[in-house]
Amino acid sequence: MTLAEARDLAFRALRNNGCDDDNAAAVADNMIEAERDICAAHGLFRLPWYVSSLRSGKVNGRATPRLEQLAPGVTRLHGDRGFAPLGHRIGLPVLAQSARENGIAALAYVDMYHVGALWPEVEWLAQEGMVAFAFTASFPYVAPAGGTKPLYGTNPVGFGWPRPGQPPLVFDQASAAMARGDVMIAAREHRQLSEGIGIDREGRPTTDPDAILEGAQLAFGGYKGAALAMMVELLAGPLIGDLLSFEAQQDDAGKGAAPHGGELILALDPRRFGDPDGYLERGERLFAAILEQQGTRLPGARRLANRERTAKGGIVVPKILYDSILAVMERP
Amino acid sequence: MTLAEARDLAFRALRNNGCDDDNAAAVADNMIEAERDICAAHGLFRLPWYVSSLRSGKVNGRATPRLEQLAPGVTRLHGDRGFAPLGHRIGLPVLAQSARENGIAALAYVDMYHVGALWPEVEWLAQEGMVAFAFTASFPYVAPAGGTKPLYGTNPVGFGWPRPGQPPLVFDQASAAMARGDVMIAAREHRQLSEGIGIDREGRPTTDPDAILEGAQLAFGGYKGAALAMMVELLAGPLIGDLLSFEAQQDDAGKGAAPHGGELILALDPRRFGDPDGYLERGERLFAAILEQQGTRLPGARRLANRERTAKGGIVVPKILYDSILAVMERP
Repeated sequence: MTLAEARDLAFRALRNNGCDDDNAAAVADNMIEAERDICAAHGLFRLPWYVSSLRSGKVNGRATPRLEQLAPGVTRLHGDRGFAPLGHRIGLPVLAQSARENGIAALAYVDMYHVGALWPEVEWLAQEGMVAFAFTASFPYVAPAGGTKPLYGTNPVGFGWPRPGQPPLVFDQASAAMARGDVMIAAREHRQLSEGIGIDREGRPTTDPDAILEGAQLAFGGYKGAALAMMVELLAGPLIGDLLSFEAQQDDAGKGAAPHGGELILALDPRRFGDPDGYLERGERLFAAILEQQGTRLPGARRLANRERTAKGGIVVPKILYDSILAVMERP
Repeated sequence: MTLAEARDLAFRALRNNGCDDDNAAAVADNMIEAERDICAAHGLFRLPWYVSSLRSGKVNGRATPRLEQLAPGVTRLHGDRGFAPLGHRIGLPVLAQSARENGIAALAYVDMYHVGALWPEVEWLAQEGMVAFAFTASFPYVAPAGGTKPLYGTNPVGFGWPRPGQPPLVFDQASAAMARGDVMIAAREHRQLSEGIGIDREGRPTTDPDAILEGAQLAFGGYKGAALAMMVELLAGPLIGDLLSFEAQQDDAGKGAAPHGGELILALDPRRFGDPDGYLERGERLFAAILEQQGTRLPGARRLANRERTAKGGIVVPKILYDSILAVMERP
């Protein structure tokens, strides 16, 4: 399938299930950016969930996000119960402008449904010259350090750094040892996982993805990853006045929609910090040391290589996924 | 030894080796805060290194840090080649005020020597009601993901969140699997370490702390921890116009002083975000779920318990450490 065909498929499914053109376009483009970079867990794989979220009545497919300035450096985007991608189109340019003026600025999404990856927003900001962070919570999937029951979302942290003459340095990594979508894909494909990904309902270590989906995922790197997961909960929930992951689950009330909640995005304009003329070259010195002296890769390198490949060769959509998309293509 | 006696010991050693009263007091207090919380790696253990840094002529014991406003939300503190703790006394209140005005603000230390923990600064800010981050690099100790040679500092991330009626929630964790000071203490005590802490000079996994000190430490949690270490390098170096860890080593030129470089501190005023009246209670809901439902502890709980204990019972200083302090008490 070409990327254009995949985008059309996603757009039509969303449009047919209650999205207006703006919302459908923003979500479809976001999903196809993930397909393009072969981030399967945030690509078309999510389309049935987007659709069921719309059908449940929880998500507003005709959302009109609204901006509110809370402080010189803080903007809030009221999501109107829509999906996050339309928020990016409205909020990110305002955040970048606020960072240019203040040096540092925050954008807080509230009352939204976030199912996508975080790298699209930090990449966009870094392409605008910003150093960017993004944080979001979801549903209780991950046990706290020393705990046995799910409490935190997979709680990713996204980070972007601008580079001269090439795509920004970007990473987007779950505080969980594995992204939720990847555990789900392993379960669908009946693949065992490594140790350290999760525990079963009794809190015992397991490599069975189905047992982990019923039990709890674990944070990466033990208590340190769990501390990051906790930090993300606080930033994407209490700080901005939105839900914790376990509150999002209560809010869902078993409807199986996407997680209702918030997202915090920070932008720092390096031209307002200490070395407006040198920061890019200083960053490149670090990357050169990683690439040349150590012969290793930078985070995100695989995504960028995939991006070049799929632009020419398109993507492969597994038949089981394609069928599940066709099954939700028309509103019942 | 009581904390007051330990503080006096540290103050005199610093004063006798070239610090003026202000610098000696700030550094001694910072070191004794670590002793008080039984963070041995940042306590009196560091005193001989502080002294040798002064004696090398690299560090200015009579530093007069100077503030400069770079943007409405960005303040730079020129360290005048001094140790970081005096910078805290001058810079942190300005950062908190800037965050109150802008909602979010940054403080960038440049041209300083940082040997302390990061939790004192984020704890201070969180006591002022701020949500706080701190980042600093050091010397090349940690290999990048897939690499075999040291490139990153241990690159801690500090985070603080205010709590009503009790000390803030604070963590301060190295991106390295183990803090440098703890590897050094294990080497001094001839203790083997766990797997995953480091590699030897040939890049082979080892549990021997001496071999790790000659080889490289590893990031916690594999490539994800290494990505955080890289992020901290970019924030505490290129963004603010200061040195990367490997540049700090070149700058040291074998003198064995503390790392010369920068620190980035961020403060977000939750009263300028989305729920000025509810954020504290929302945070407590998360902590209650961790403590009551899962029966586990919060990050920093051990430090706070130690703090109560040492306030009454004082601290134990190992004889080998006490002797090494006496040996540097007077300038030669």
